Amino acid sequence: MEDGRSADVVVVGAGFAGLAAAHELAGAGARVAVAEARDRVGGRVLTRLLPDGTQLDLGGQWVGPSQHEMRELIARYRVPTYPTPEHGRAVVDYEGTLVDALPPEAMALRGELDRLSREVPADAPWTHPRARSWDGTTLASWLAGRTGDPAVARAVGRQTAGGLLSLDAADASLLETLFYLAGGGGLDVLVGFAGGAQAERLVGGPQELAIRMAAALPAGTIRLGAPVRRIEHGPGGAVVHAGGLRLEAAHVIVAIPPVLAGRIEYDPPLPPQRDGLTQRMASGYALKTHAVYQEPFWRARGLSGISFSSAGVLTETVDNTPPGGPSAVLTSFAYGADAHLLRARTPRDRRRAVLDRLGELFGDEARDPVAYVEFDWCAEPWTRGCFSGHLAPGGWTGFGPALRAPAGVLHWAGTETATRWNGYFDGAVQSGRRAAAEILTGAPDGAGGHVPPLPDRSDPGRSGGGPGGSP
Amino acid sequence: MEDGRSADVVVVGAGFAGLAAAHELAGAGARVAVAEARDRVGGRVLTRLLPDGTQLDLGGQWVGPSQHEMRELIARYRVPTYPTPEHGRAVVDYEGTLVDALPPEAMALRGELDRLSREVPADAPWTHPRARSWDGTTLASWLAGRTGDPAVARAVGRQTAGGLLSLDAADASLLETLFYLAGGGGLDVLVGFAGGAQAERLVGGPQELAIRMAAALPAGTIRLGAPVRRIEHGPGGAVVHAGGLRLEAAHVIVAIPPVLAGRIEYDPPLPPQRDGLTQRMASGYALKTHAVYQEPFWRARGLSGISFSSAGVLTETVDNTPPGGPSAVLTSFAYGADAHLLRARTPRDRRRAVLDRLGELFGDEARDPVAYVEFDWCAEPWTRGCFSGHLAPGGWTGFGPALRAPAGVLHWAGTETATRWNGYFDGAVQSGRRAAAEILTGAPDGAGGHVPPLPDRSDPGRSGGGPGGSP
Repeated sequence: MEDGRSADVVVVGAGFAGLAAAHELAGAGARVAVAEARDRVGGRVLTRLLPDGTQLDLGGQWVGPSQHEMRELIARYRVPTYPTPEHGRAVVDYEGTLVDALPPEAMALRGELDRLSREVPADAPWTHPRARSWDGTTLASWLAGRTGDPAVARAVGRQTAGGLLSLDAADASLLETLFYLAGGGGLDVLVGFAGGAQAERLVGGPQELAIRMAAALPAGTIRLGAPVRRIEHGPGGAVVHAGGLRLEAAHVIVAIPPVLAGRIEYDPPLPPQRDGLTQRMASGYALKTHAVYQEPFWRARGLSGISFSSAGVLTETVDNTPPGGPSAVLTSFAYGADAHLLRARTPRDRRRAVLDRLGELFGDEARDPVAYVEFDWCAEPWTRGCFSGHLAPGGWTGFGPALRAPAGVLHWAGTETATRWNGYFDGAVQSGRRAAAEILTGAPDGAGGHVPPLPDRSDPGRSGGGPGGSP
Repeated sequence: MEDGRSADVVVVGAGFAGLAAAHELAGAGARVAVAEARDRVGGRVLTRLLPDGTQLDLGGQWVGPSQHEMRELIARYRVPTYPTPEHGRAVVDYEGTLVDALPPEAMALRGELDRLSREVPADAPWTHPRARSWDGTTLASWLAGRTGDPAVARAVGRQTAGGLLSLDAADASLLETLFYLAGGGGLDVLVGFAGGAQAERLVGGPQELAIRMAAALPAGTIRLGAPVRRIEHGPGGAVVHAGGLRLEAAHVIVAIPPVLAGRIEYDPPLPPQRDGLTQRMASGYALKTHAVYQEPFWRARGLSGISFSSAGVLTETVDNTPPGGPSAVLTSFAYGADAHLLRARTPRDRRRAVLDRLGELFGDEARDPVAYVEFDWCAEPWTRGCFSGHLAPGGWTGFGPALRAPAGVLHWAGTETATRWNGYFDGAVQSGRRAAAEILTGAPDGAGGHVPPLPDRSDPGRSGGGPGGSP
């Protein structure tokens, strides 16, 4: 290219964060190269079709009405959606007994978490007056201090640390939990189906949206099979080594999970606070499995397929049947200690444990699916977790300021850096757009200096190939 | 070599763990290659001489009487030692007041930690009946639950989570704290000078011992400037890519901090539990600085130079003057939030803050040293922390079994894997010897199978060049 550079900006990772960043930049006329380790786009989404055409979303899958960045993309790229099936009532298993709802004490604790979460500034949780105390308290400790009933603590811990952060209550600080709740607008929205974060699914899966976004970028923008191992950087720009590629650019956006961002070799090395951040931002370790049946037999019993259990290997289940079928799907989630126990089993024993539990929840038909599919994101070298990364106790107050602060020409994206819907697609998109804006408009860098904005390249002749219009 | 392999075993890292492993293996007749990223041996030790010859130990520096593995090496390699200077009384600053000792309530909490630590099985902390509870409780929470006096909690937190684990009490789980105390035989031994972990220093520094150990290995064993980026491995052996080198071996011992071990690319990828372990075993973030004076002026005031403060930027100081001088040295340690605050300052302001605090503790002469030396191990790409790594809350009970379990032909060493003196030189040596024994005698692998031992190669003709005898 004319200035000898491969691009104005190299984006590392073609998940929703990287794709959103690339679109913002390309739309403003910048030349962008996206280096993606995998042979596909989408990152933590992966849609697989069964032989009969039934859609399985093996990774992230839902969108909700208050996820405005995703809704805008879905509209722009014309991806049809459908409501998550809720034909019947949910099963709530509290200590082995089916109940209509969790006990009032558990609901009160949920309410208290919600109230506290509204105090947490999502862009700087470490500035809250009680941040040091909340950061140094695990959710498990906080719950134990709030209720003398271990069953109540367990139920709320599984629903929040488990169902939302995909951790154990022992791993999650109270501050991280509150921050996460704040990002989605509170627990009811986060755990909800109709009207909540799990309201709708995408036809073709979210991967379809990622594919359409990628296709709308200028040809050659995305380099698949290009894992980034090393980034040399300085005030004048950066060189990104991605597989056999050597990509030069003025700026880099690293749009992958922090735990993987920390495994890249940076020259010069990143400052201690940034490196320390990636040392203590482990990913959750949920295990998501799919049992496939000829019919959604649970509906005939008045059950929605949605369940929450305060004990047992499966914390949550959901009816994941696409509207046209042809097969029916019950999808299960194990978190925390349950996920560890399941992973330690043989594949055969694990399948048996999941199906036995489904049988207890929904009836014996559940024990004999026509297919059983699992996909362990924690075993994926380009993800290494499920769902997303979380700062360990003490992490926010010690290392939080390094989460988004650019390191010279290096910028940080990915849903873990989002201030709204952190951990969700929507946060990923927000993060990519924010990182692109840092470059396009100039933004304070991590050292207190200023990153000069890119020159304006958005003359119509150059941006014609970009994605500013309809795809 | 005869079988086309570079070595029987490749050891990653030439710190004390790697050197100890190499010696065990070479002594048994195995061919060993040690790949070291730096241009020196010793890992987390680094001795620097001032222009006048005064010895500064910038990294680890002490040995104590119950560190038997180190004492044996010191004797074998004839490295002279000298007692840590204790000319006078220690300064204990409790809430801004100089006292003779911490209040009885603080001492009682220390005693309780010691008692609990004796219950923790050092080889499997996750098996303790209360492991889940202790692992899900930060030391900060535990202390807050034990005393209504925040000053008492702060003092004990700074002495244990700070002075030993180089963390904040908010970062450290109670289980990790107890495990660490157990490894050294309790708090009094761990924080003690005469008779304790800080009893003696080495003439020439511990780096002198590392250099002698390296020199006693067969010529060509250690490859300096060879950072390991990628390890391919399978039942038949492994290929280690270290800088431009390609080293083939039957087994590999990875003897570097877990956070760095997690940054190596493994093909095939490591199992989720092992990868998850390195995601949540961040290193501590102490900052150690040295102020150099013409005379140890504090001794004339009856002060030993040793101090502990329950508040202020320096938790601990020590007289680091070598017996022959010629200069006198006061060495300071900042931990946790204090280390963060100091790092965030300019070098000039940081120096000022340290020296001002030394002036408060020891008199105005401390404010004007002839030299001031700092070395930030957290900024070192081949260390990335100070002192050592610790499992985050929830880490032991979720991921602990992966700490030492070999992954096929890959074995794990480093002081973080030790069951005695974890975090110390002695633990590093123990870990290297243990990993070597896994290979020499065969040991259960992580998958429940069995790693076949190496064939016996210890015929006298081949081991003659090895380090079995005196160096």
